[in-house]
Formats: sequence, C-alpha cells, structure tokens
Amino acid sequence: MKFATLDNQGKTQVCIVNTEKNLFWPVSELVSGFDGDMNQLVHAYENIKDKLSTDSGGYDLSKAKALAPIERPRRNIFCVGRNYHAHANELATSVFKDNDKNPQSWPIVFTKVPECVVAHLDIVELPGEVSQQIDYEAELAIIIGKGGKNISRDEAMGHVFGYTIVNDVTARDVQIRHQQWDLGKSFDTFCPMGPWIATADELDGSKTRVRCWVNGELRQDGATPDLIFDLPTLIETCSRGITLYPGDIIATGTPAGVGMGMKPAQYLKTGDVVRIEVDGIGVLENTFK
Amino acid sequence: MKFATLDNQGKTQVCIVNTEKNLFWPVSELVSGFDGDMNQLVHAYENIKDKLSTDSGGYDLSKAKALAPIERPRRNIFCVGRNYHAHANELATSVFKDNDKNPQSWPIVFTKVPECVVAHLDIVELPGEVSQQIDYEAELAIIIGKGGKNISRDEAMGHVFGYTIVNDVTARDVQIRHQQWDLGKSFDTFCPMGPWIATADELDGSKTRVRCWVNGELRQDGATPDLIFDLPTLIETCSRGITLYPGDIIATGTPAGVGMGMKPAQYLKTGDVVRIEVDGIGVLENTFK
Repeated sequence: MKFATLDNQGKTQVCIVNTEKNLFWPVSELVSGFDGDMNQLVHAYENIKDKLSTDSGGYDLSKAKALAPIERPRRNIFCVGRNYHAHANELATSVFKDNDKNPQSWPIVFTKVPECVVAHLDIVELPGEVSQQIDYEAELAIIIGKGGKNISRDEAMGHVFGYTIVNDVTARDVQIRHQQWDLGKSFDTFCPMGPWIATADELDGSKTRVRCWVNGELRQDGATPDLIFDLPTLIETCSRGITLYPGDIIATGTPAGVGMGMKPAQYLKTGDVVRIEVDGIGVLENTFK
Repeated sequence: MKFATLDNQGKTQVCIVNTEKNLFWPVSELVSGFDGDMNQLVHAYENIKDKLSTDSGGYDLSKAKALAPIERPRRNIFCVGRNYHAHANELATSVFKDNDKNPQSWPIVFTKVPECVVAHLDIVELPGEVSQQIDYEAELAIIIGKGGKNISRDEAMGHVFGYTIVNDVTARDVQIRHQQWDLGKSFDTFCPMGPWIATADELDGSKTRVRCWVNGELRQDGATPDLIFDLPTLIETCSRGITLYPGDIIATGTPAGVGMGMKPAQYLKTGDVVRIEVDGIGVLENTFK
C-alpha cells in the first residue's frame, strides 16, 4: 500500500494512492473519525489498517498535488553518511580526507532540520552567495512505525512503517568547514521528500534500486544490497540509548555519483532538474533555482 | 525578568519567577487569554510584555516544581562544540585528534534531539552497557526570540529572547566512534535544562560566568568572554541559509574541565551529582543514575 499527503483542491489530506490505477482515497473517508496528518496515521496504522479498503471508489490522482508525505517531521531527520561502498570511495579524497585511516566500524549519523522538507515538484532554493557548492544525494528513507529504544537488529524491521525517497541536498563547503554536517545539510528547502510512502509489506527496502538523474543524465545508480550498514543496523544504531518514535525518519545514505565526486566537481545551478527514482516507491523530481 | 515552566500542584504553567522574593506569577493570570507553553510565550512576548506586571500578588515559589523551561523544543537543539579556548586545548589529543591541523575558522554545530530534555533535579539515566563514558558539559544556551534567516552579526542580539542553562550530557565513546556527534549527544535524559530563562534585557549573556561542580568539586569555571565564537557569530552561523524560529535553542559550548579532559578521564557514575551555575540565571542540578 502507498500513502501520500495530498493537496486535494486546497484541502490537505492523508490518502492511500494507487499509482497504477491513478486513484486516491482520503483515509478520513475510509476510517470514520480519522482526521490526522501522516504522523498520526503512522501512529494509528496498526489499529485502522483493516479498514483501509480500496476495492471501490477512489478519486482521480492527477487532479491532486503530492505534498511531502510527512510535511513537518516531528524532529530533525536522522541521516546516514557514506553508506554505500562506491560512494565512500568517491569521497575519500575530499570531505572525508581526515578519516581515511578510520575503517568506519560504525555508521555516521547526522541530522537535517524538519523545516527543510519540501514536496515533489517544489523548487529547491539555491542559497546564492551563502554557498555555491550545492549537491544532490538520492536516498531511500525509512519511516519508523513502532517506536522503541535499544532495538536489536533482529527486531528492527518490525519497527518499519514504510519507505519514501529523500534528496539529501547539501551545501558541500558548509558541510565541510563546520566539521559537523548538520548546518550544511539543513538549508531551507534542502530536503525534497516523496512523493509517496510505500509500506513495509509492499516494498522490501533492503533490495531496491536508487537512481538519480540531473537534467536527464544518469548520475547515481545504486541498490540497497550495497549498503555498508544495512537497514536493521541503522535502526539498531539510531535507537541505542535514544527512543525512536513513530514517524521518525532515517535517510539511509546515497550511492556513488554525487556532483562533488565528479572530476571536476559539478554543483547544481539555476534551472537544474534532479530526478530520483527508487524502485517500488516512485519518482521525486525537483528544480533548483 | 525570569520565566519558568512550573508544575504548580499538578498543573503545568508558564510563569514569571522572582527568585529573590521566592515568588511566581502564572502568565495566564496576568494576560487574559494566554494559555500557551513557553514556545508560545516566546512567540507572543513582544505583544504582551507590557502586561507582565509583578508589582503585586505572586505565589510561593518553593511550593512549585521547575520543569524544563522549554519542555519539548520545537526541533533538535543546535549545540556548539569546542567553543572555549581552554576547552579546545584540553580535548586536542582526544576527540579532536584528527583536527589539530584545522585552525577552526568556523563554529562546530551539531544537535541534540528535543526529547532528551529533562528538568532541574530530574534524574539523568546512565545508559548501562550502551556507554560507560558519560560526561557533563555546562553551557549557556540562547533562546531565540525573533526568527529570521541570514541574520547578520550586527542584528543578531536583537533576535535573542533570553538565556537558560543546559548540561550537554555526552556519551564520549558514542560521540567519537560515529564521527558525527548527534547520536552520542542525544540519549534519553541527556539534556538537563533550566531552571529558568533570564530574558535578554536582564542578563548580558556575553559577559557571564559558567561553573560546574561534580559532587561538590569545582570542575568547570569559565566565562563567556572567553568564547572562541561569540554569541552574535553563533546566531549568524546557525541562520546562514537556515530560518531560525522563536524558541529555537543554541547551546553555546562548554568551558574547560570536562571529565574526558582529566588525566585519567573521569566519567560519571551512579549517584554523581552535577551542579551547574550560570551567573544571572541560577543553578541546574541533576543526579546521574
């Protein structure tokens, strides 16, 4: 099943979407009394999922606009750095130069502020003189369903509600110069997300393909079996000592092919279109201006 | 003026406190129609401050319990690392060993999750086998009043609502092994905050003293004129490309004297009491268990 937050003729609604049939169903029409946002749907899901029948009815999906599925995450988004083998190699001589001797036994986890989330087809704002090294990072993101603390690898996948796509947009110079990455990752509009959430029973996030095109040119083509730290390890890691909550988001890292890794580096400029596709979810496309 | 979030006989109220007279006034009793939390007070402050008269009345402060002034920050707390000269030196051979050659031209900014905030006198939970290198960091924290983006140094202090105390509790091994610090800083209960917020017209945060005792032994004794990056620079830095909102919190870094900097390192153990005093605000004390 896929969920979306849709702008349905000016009304924001959490909906089930069927992209093959091009239809959507507002959850509030299927579950009497439900009037929440996506965070509240994630919370309520186990109790209401039996009522989410889409056997009949449905509205024309092409008449609605996809907003970010979680428009305002409940707190900063957990993000994983350097988590595909090939991507780690392409960056070994730049952002990570001080860490080559580090065998990276543990995942690198930083955050993006919740307010930088934008939707599929929204504009990502280039920050002008503040940074001219803006880069894309196509990523599969985990949406936590059942919260918990000190979640073991074995139990981790039972805590996944579903998956969406994020573009972990980054101001490379800001990321590097502050040593800690949160600032360079958190500029306004720097987290395109969507268009849908595919639930964990529909998509196996551990076996999917992540691709990214810039102006039609394929730049990234990875697959989650190539993750250095797999999905259960990431959930175990983020929950060690830290309670995770329903709706928490963990962006799992980006494959090789970012602009900074090219020779010479190619950063995004006005008018560039970044299109990300994750198999089993859909397409997230944004223009940079 | 000082503000607090108090548990007043089971009711959570935003209050003005007068610590010399040992009195408090619920804001809802001074401003008709105000029923908000501290984030909402910060938002409304400029419009309601003329009504906040404490010339008469008041309740016995000793009968109320101070909760964290901002119990649930609206997003992760911005935190600044290595921001006192003497502290940078004490850590030069440990957590920062890869960065000695870096002249640190820019502030280091990481985050703590909002849910790790606890109050004055609350227990801080030692995480058992997850980490046995738990350390304290006494800090002055800025509370942003007026939001904004790309705030200049010259304008920065006009965006400050006030100041509080935080203990930026840290699991040192976790901080170091993940390279990015957010995880090791975000364990449940790892952000004691309070007991009050001193407004910017009451306290000059750029000239105050920050001290910390562990079981009565003075460990940290610094003053904000010794900051490597001063308060206006921190606000300018955090707002470059990133919109700041009323109620955002920036913890400004800790003076020399953390447990990791001692020879040998001394980490916190069950029963330890950490007491922080920032002149002009008050005392934040917590027991670790």
